[in-house]
Formats: sequence, C-alpha cells, structure tokens
Amino acid sequence: MADQHSHNLARRGLMFILSSPSGAGKTTVARRLLAEDGEIAMSVSVTTRPPRPGEVDGKDYHFVDRAEFARMVEDGEMLEWAEVFGNNYGTPKAHIKAGLKAGQDFLFDIDWQGTQQLYQRMETDVVRVFLLPPSIDELEDRLRGRGTDSEQVIEGRMSRARSEISHWDGYDFVVVNDDIDECFAKVRTILDAERMRRARQTGLVDFTRGLMRQDPGSA
Amino acid sequence: MADQHSHNLARRGLMFILSSPSGAGKTTVARRLLAEDGEIAMSVSVTTRPPRPGEVDGKDYHFVDRAEFARMVEDGEMLEWAEVFGNNYGTPKAHIKAGLKAGQDFLFDIDWQGTQQLYQRMETDVVRVFLLPPSIDELEDRLRGRGTDSEQVIEGRMSRARSEISHWDGYDFVVVNDDIDECFAKVRTILDAERMRRARQTGLVDFTRGLMRQDPGSA
Repeated sequence: MADQHSHNLARRGLMFILSSPSGAGKTTVARRLLAEDGEIAMSVSVTTRPPRPGEVDGKDYHFVDRAEFARMVEDGEMLEWAEVFGNNYGTPKAHIKAGLKAGQDFLFDIDWQGTQQLYQRMETDVVRVFLLPPSIDELEDRLRGRGTDSEQVIEGRMSRARSEISHWDGYDFVVVNDDIDECFAKVRTILDAERMRRARQTGLVDFTRGLMRQDPGSA
Repeated sequence: MADQHSHNLARRGLMFILSSPSGAGKTTVARRLLAEDGEIAMSVSVTTRPPRPGEVDGKDYHFVDRAEFARMVEDGEMLEWAEVFGNNYGTPKAHIKAGLKAGQDFLFDIDWQGTQQLYQRMETDVVRVFLLPPSIDELEDRLRGRGTDSEQVIEGRMSRARSEISHWDGYDFVVVNDDIDECFAKVRTILDAERMRRARQTGLVDFTRGLMRQDPGSA
C-alpha cells in the first residue's frame, strides 16, 4: 500500500448535487460531467411514472407501480422522494450506499427540497452545488424561449425561477454561469477538490501507517 | 451588482494552511502558489528572533522584542503563537482579520499545533491541507540528504517526520506528493474550489437579490 500513488488510494464516493433555476445550464453541465468523467454516474431514480418510448428500465429509471413505491418508502428504502404532477420519484438507498463504499460518485439533478432531504440523510457524503444565471435580463431571455408563449406563461416561469433562486444559501458552492465552458470548469474543480477531502480518502489509514513504519528495510 | 461576473463578486478571503513532514515538498508548493496566484499572500509572523542579514521588517517578519511579544499575547492580539528554540513566533490577528474581510487570502506554512490553534480561533475561514511523501523509502532518501549525516541524526529526522505524519487526520485535505507538478495542480484545485464556497461569496446576497427582482425593466 505504501508505494501506491495518491490517485490510486481507496476512497469513498460522494453525492454531487447540481441544482439551479430552469435555464441556468444545469442540464448541459450534468451531461458533460457524465460524458467526460469516468468516476461519476447519474443516480437512477425509482418512479411510478410509466416509461416513455425509448426509456430503459434500470438505466433511465427503475419503473415500479404505486404499491411497490409505497412499500419502499414504508420500509425506509428511499433516501428522498417527492410527488410531481401526480407521479412519485425517489432515490433508492441500497444502490447509493453500496456505490459510495466502492468509490463510485453519483450525480443528482434535483431541486432544493430533494437536496435538503439527501443532506439530512447523508450529510458528509453530499456536496451541494447551485448554478445561477448571470443576470435577471439573461434569465428572462432564456425563459422567454422562442417568443411564442404568453406573458402569463412566462411570468409563471419567472416566478418558479425566483422561488428556486431564493434557496441559493442552502448550498455548499454557488457558481454563476456567465459562460458555459468556464462554468463547467468550475464545477469540475469543485468535484476534483472534494474527492481529495481527507475524510473521503479511506486508503489513507493504511498509507500513513506504512509511512510511519519503524523499519523501512522490510518495505 | 446583478450583472457582475461571478469572479468579480465580492468574497471573503480564506486562510490556506499547508503542513507536511520535512521533505514532502511544502516549501516548493508554497513558493509557486505565491508566485503564480495574485490573490494569496504569505501571512507575516511576529517574532522575537533577531533579523538575519537581508530580512526586511514587515515583509519577512514583524520583529519585536520579548516585552512587546508578551504584551501582544496578553492583549489577545495573536491568533496562534509558539516558542521554537527559545524564540517566539506568532500570527497577528488584526492584519489577518482586515485582509480576510477585503478578500485577501493568506498562506500559512505551519505545523499541526499551529494549525490546531488557528482552526480553534477561525474555524470556517481555515482550509487545512497536508502533504505526504509518496513512500517511506522516498521519505528516508529525502531525509538522508547528501549522505554526510550520522545514522543518529537521520533517525532523529525520521522520528520527527513520523510524528508530524501522525497528525494527518487533523486536516481537511491530504495530497500525496508523487510528482511536484501534479501535487501543485492538486493544491491549486483545492484553493480554487474553496474560493467558490457559498459562505465565502459575500457578494451573493446582493447578486441573488438582483436576480429575484420583480421588475427587470428597471435593471
């Protein structure tokens, strides 16, 4: 163990949460992270929503019926769950816990309520990152979309965005997305640094024990 | 404020602590950080040790006599202090506190005891990084130096190094120095990420208030 390189030391995975108001670039950042970083995987949710064409069970979602979902909640098998437009969505605990122990990082694309639930259950495993748009004008431009929606629809989107933004202070890191490349680089920097946290580097116990051996000749 | 770029948002500085056993590359990393990063400065200690040739008061150290040092400790003007080989060294509080408020980061090259003292006083402002040598053989090679020292002297150094290493778990981040460039890059990643912590980004209060304004037309 003592001669292993640092990046090979065993480590515990982390739960990387990305939240943002709609239109702040979260989906782009999440996709790029999954494409470019081999150590992080999307957390696969359990849902009662029926599969859409092309969706694969166990990859996009774990599709279950209402009775099974209720049983999982009842038996404490969910780390967090919520109802959205009449369907239930949840994060299954067993898979995440086994993954973290094996050094797998998980990406979560969830809102502030899901973030709060995950944090309450998994505190030190969670890293919470919030993305913000660069300005109110930019936010409005993005939410106006192609200009075919009514003012009422747009005001509804603005209102939801404002409400999401109001939870910025429940996050560990906040990144303003002026430029998508710069924003992505910042998110990666946060992820890379958090992996170096002493508390996640489970291999350090053996490694430092090796460094402190009295008789290096026997190494 | 609302249209400012993220890297221009006001932020509180941080206290970046680098510790390591002798020979693990701390001095090299510290010098490079100071040379390449314009936002971090070395913390200037107060000492009772007489100036050495070329040392500048207020730059290398603040040189004071024993009475003045004792007064500063007495009046609570030191964040931490220690006696080394009969001389006193301390970190003056007022300068650091004013700097942090203005967004200045400070670098500290101190041992685990100084780290503990700083952490107890300044908790959330402190980021603690520990560097480790890649192996026990490498550590011994480095401590043997040019091979002119007696086994007894070398064993003394090994013993001090082991003792310093035993405190690795009192740090937030641990980096193994296999390669000085890689090690330096990792230390910078940690510093860059920590600067993005929500709690240090004091400008976010105004920035998010701007984003949540009801009437963007008046922006």
